Amino acid sequence: MDITDAPNIPSIFGEVLRDKRLALNISQEELAFRAGVDRTFVSRIERGLRQPTITSLIALSSALGISATELIKTTELRIKS
Amino acid sequence: MDITDAPNIPSIFGEVLRDKRLALNISQEELAFRAGVDRTFVSRIERGLRQPTITSLIALSSALGISATELIKTTELRIKS
Repeated sequence: MDITDAPNIPSIFGEVLRDKRLALNISQEELAFRAGVDRTFVSRIERGLRQPTITSLIALSSALGISATELIKTTELRIKS
Repeated sequence: MDITDAPNIPSIFGEVLRDKRLALNISQEELAFRAGVDRTFVSRIERGLRQPTITSLIALSSALGISATELIKTTELRIKS
């Protein structure tokens, strides 16, 4: 399967973001505060309704204490699985 | 330096995308065609004026024959350098 044919990349990324957030046991509000974005933005991303830019991807991963590389790597692995 | 304080993440990502494209010796038009996006979108990203979503990030990296993980890793390393 060509990775770009993946069913729904935004939803898969949203799941990954949510899993990483829950692994830290923090709320969407806390993650949004740490990343300097609006809580509704985090909520929409996790539901696959919105996607982050590179800048917000880096802010969100930094807020999770991981690299954006790790966040994207987990997403790509889940897309291919 | 906190990575999120980086001077201009969109410009840095644009430089990385451009370097990877030139390493393949392909035009913006060719990259855009392969990725299924508009040429002007590639041009604006490379100039730091636009940023890709996760979906277009994966399409662009796939078009370059590399993973989105590698594209983001190179960007993060350049931000920290």
